[in-house]
Amino acid sequence: MKEIAVGLLGCGTVGTGVARILLEKQALITSRTGLKLKLKHIADIDTARGRGLNLPPGVMTADAGAVVDDPEIAIVVELIGGLSIAKEFMLRAIDNGKHIVTANKALLSTHGNRIFPRAAAKGVDIAYEASVGGCMPIIRTIRESLVADRIDSIRGILNGTCNYILSKMTEERCPFETALKEAQQKGFAEADPSLDIDGLDTAHKLAILNTIAFGMAINLNDIYVEGIRSITPLDIEFAEAFGYRIKLLAISKRTDGGVEARIHPTMIPADNLLSSVSGSLNAVTVSGDCVGDLLLHGHGAGMMPTASAVVSDIVDLARNIAGGLNGRVPAFSYRDEAVQPLPVLSMDNLRACYYFRFTATDRPGVLSKIAGILGAHNISIQSVHQQGSGTGGQVPLVMLSHQAVEADVKNALAEIAGLDIVTDQPVLIRIEDAGAR
Amino acid sequence: MKEIAVGLLGCGTVGTGVARILLEKQALITSRTGLKLKLKHIADIDTARGRGLNLPPGVMTADAGAVVDDPEIAIVVELIGGLSIAKEFMLRAIDNGKHIVTANKALLSTHGNRIFPRAAAKGVDIAYEASVGGCMPIIRTIRESLVADRIDSIRGILNGTCNYILSKMTEERCPFETALKEAQQKGFAEADPSLDIDGLDTAHKLAILNTIAFGMAINLNDIYVEGIRSITPLDIEFAEAFGYRIKLLAISKRTDGGVEARIHPTMIPADNLLSSVSGSLNAVTVSGDCVGDLLLHGHGAGMMPTASAVVSDIVDLARNIAGGLNGRVPAFSYRDEAVQPLPVLSMDNLRACYYFRFTATDRPGVLSKIAGILGAHNISIQSVHQQGSGTGGQVPLVMLSHQAVEADVKNALAEIAGLDIVTDQPVLIRIEDAGAR
Repeated sequence: MKEIAVGLLGCGTVGTGVARILLEKQALITSRTGLKLKLKHIADIDTARGRGLNLPPGVMTADAGAVVDDPEIAIVVELIGGLSIAKEFMLRAIDNGKHIVTANKALLSTHGNRIFPRAAAKGVDIAYEASVGGCMPIIRTIRESLVADRIDSIRGILNGTCNYILSKMTEERCPFETALKEAQQKGFAEADPSLDIDGLDTAHKLAILNTIAFGMAINLNDIYVEGIRSITPLDIEFAEAFGYRIKLLAISKRTDGGVEARIHPTMIPADNLLSSVSGSLNAVTVSGDCVGDLLLHGHGAGMMPTASAVVSDIVDLARNIAGGLNGRVPAFSYRDEAVQPLPVLSMDNLRACYYFRFTATDRPGVLSKIAGILGAHNISIQSVHQQGSGTGGQVPLVMLSHQAVEADVKNALAEIAGLDIVTDQPVLIRIEDAGAR
Repeated sequence: MKEIAVGLLGCGTVGTGVARILLEKQALITSRTGLKLKLKHIADIDTARGRGLNLPPGVMTADAGAVVDDPEIAIVVELIGGLSIAKEFMLRAIDNGKHIVTANKALLSTHGNRIFPRAAAKGVDIAYEASVGGCMPIIRTIRESLVADRIDSIRGILNGTCNYILSKMTEERCPFETALKEAQQKGFAEADPSLDIDGLDTAHKLAILNTIAFGMAINLNDIYVEGIRSITPLDIEFAEAFGYRIKLLAISKRTDGGVEARIHPTMIPADNLLSSVSGSLNAVTVSGDCVGDLLLHGHGAGMMPTASAVVSDIVDLARNIAGGLNGRVPAFSYRDEAVQPLPVLSMDNLRACYYFRFTATDRPGVLSKIAGILGAHNISIQSVHQQGSGTGGQVPLVMLSHQAVEADVKNALAEIAGLDIVTDQPVLIRIEDAGAR
């Protein structure tokens, strides 16, 4: 039986899960592939991390360099995370002719434009299913199952931390800080949660999806990113009253002029399947011109779901190695010569429906004043909620707009914010009719 | 550029869609594969069917034999449907060394145990993604993405006709016959709808999924099949009152003694994602020991969604042909020597919760009599709904049981049906807590 040696860099949560599968599920994998995957080395600065794994002697090492230089190892699995060290060892492994499996969305979305061509030049493959959506096979689905489809849009809940917090806030009407604290206590949020809650982790993932869906260069810096810190229970309540839920959505759409690519809290219809994605779960809807809306839903993170995706990539590469084949599917779905210079559109040009919440003095004429400014900026209103307190105090005034242009919205809101009858900064949440229901 | 010739058998709905993609989307496919897929021939007895396709001269033919015998053709796409003729040409194509793509669930689930070994002996591949779930990549997901997972269960809505009818009945409280008629008028049901509504189409699909999920021989005849003809608006209403929806579910589960494999109307919690699958859409939840619950949702039928899946299979095979590789992934996910003789368990041994509806005379003692018989058969009741009319007429008596054994349930219901206070045949619907919510 053909044996393929695997070297693992990083023995954190996912690395431990991958090692466990390779050690404990060898019989299953062999019965499905006819191959033996041999976990030859795991490298981690902290070699004590391998302790729970019951590893054969000599497998654990602190020397990542020795792993990527080991001539016997055919596949290097990079699970170090972060940018600089991961990149260094990944490039060294590529230069040594190793095929790569990684879950490192930050690295691929930041330096992929450099890493992928280098791999192609060396004739090695980079597999990265686990970098987006944990166990959901969204990369394989777009790259292989939708090979005949022109992808028109992607809409995803791609960050479990944010979805956990927003679900909690929706169920319990608690403030953001309370939900965040609980997420941290339960292990769904990091001590420093900013990468998740400010949307950057989601942006890393969308940058990868955009590339494979639209055949464009990686565009991380062009993606509009807005996190969930500003969401309040009040907005969640109004959303529900209007038949919506608030989710942090990654959205990209192919348009005539380029690609919309944006991450922001989004109101989606309550009967949309994406509205039902609860807790730390993830989901993504891909729309293709042939398939219509196709939705995947599952665990977007966690030790074993992510490890399962990593091992499916290892097996994919191992099958190709055993068959003497590389580059079977282009890394980014499209062949290099077919990658198009699709620009990411400016948010100013976005056309969307909007939810506005103004905090205004409860006195006659306020509504007409605000509506007047909106109208003057070509923003027409489809729905208003105003409940006066009758005390002349501050009350929320909520409006849903018809489709409007974001630049107009910005200008109108700046003007409204300057009114003396409006106290707090106006709240804006974009509305999306998110397909698949 | 490498050109791979494709021959298409059958120019019905899906065949027309496949031809359209191969004719109109060649540039897209080439930009993602570096290959040219040449639609050399389409065979259909009715050659007029190709008329709308604007085919180059000589492509359309009535002679399927000439297509499967054409030495230039590398991939034969069987979209004839049905058993005998499709089998004849598929086997002839296999014997000629052609790789096969098919959407024919009836054929594979009925004669797969003969077809697949013959293909293996000839070193050709059979791809069949479109045979289950239309555009949902459930075959690829189980075979490739979940290669490291022990699959524990599958729960799916796999027939759009049934889901359309049940959704209609749920939304409009109309009787089965009305919903069926509308489904027929809108093209969601055939003139003879029995293959769909009696559950056999779903059984064909589950037989295929079982095989790849559990590594067992095809077991179509062992699957328990019950269709949706007997569902009434009254049961749908009671289901809702208890927090459930009624769906035709395909269920299989790995247990210690073998595999549960059953298709029947099922009550599932209203907050389960499967409950939200509306109209003719399909969805399937696969549970693996690593990934937990993974759900796919999309169009399970229709010209272009199904054609997209067929073309993804053609591309998959073409990539292997171009790479000189066959048998890259075992046809049924497990290698032949690893296929296990897992028995399908008898329904008598099923342990489930049940919904019962009795039509009983509205007089004192009826409830205690029926409950007594259930209790004597080890069936304990978790919930009862009885609303007397006070007129001594016939009223529905509805009960939900705790987990019970199906053989006991059958015996109890036979005994209850024999009571003179019970008029109609008792109604039984199984309840399933269907994961992924």
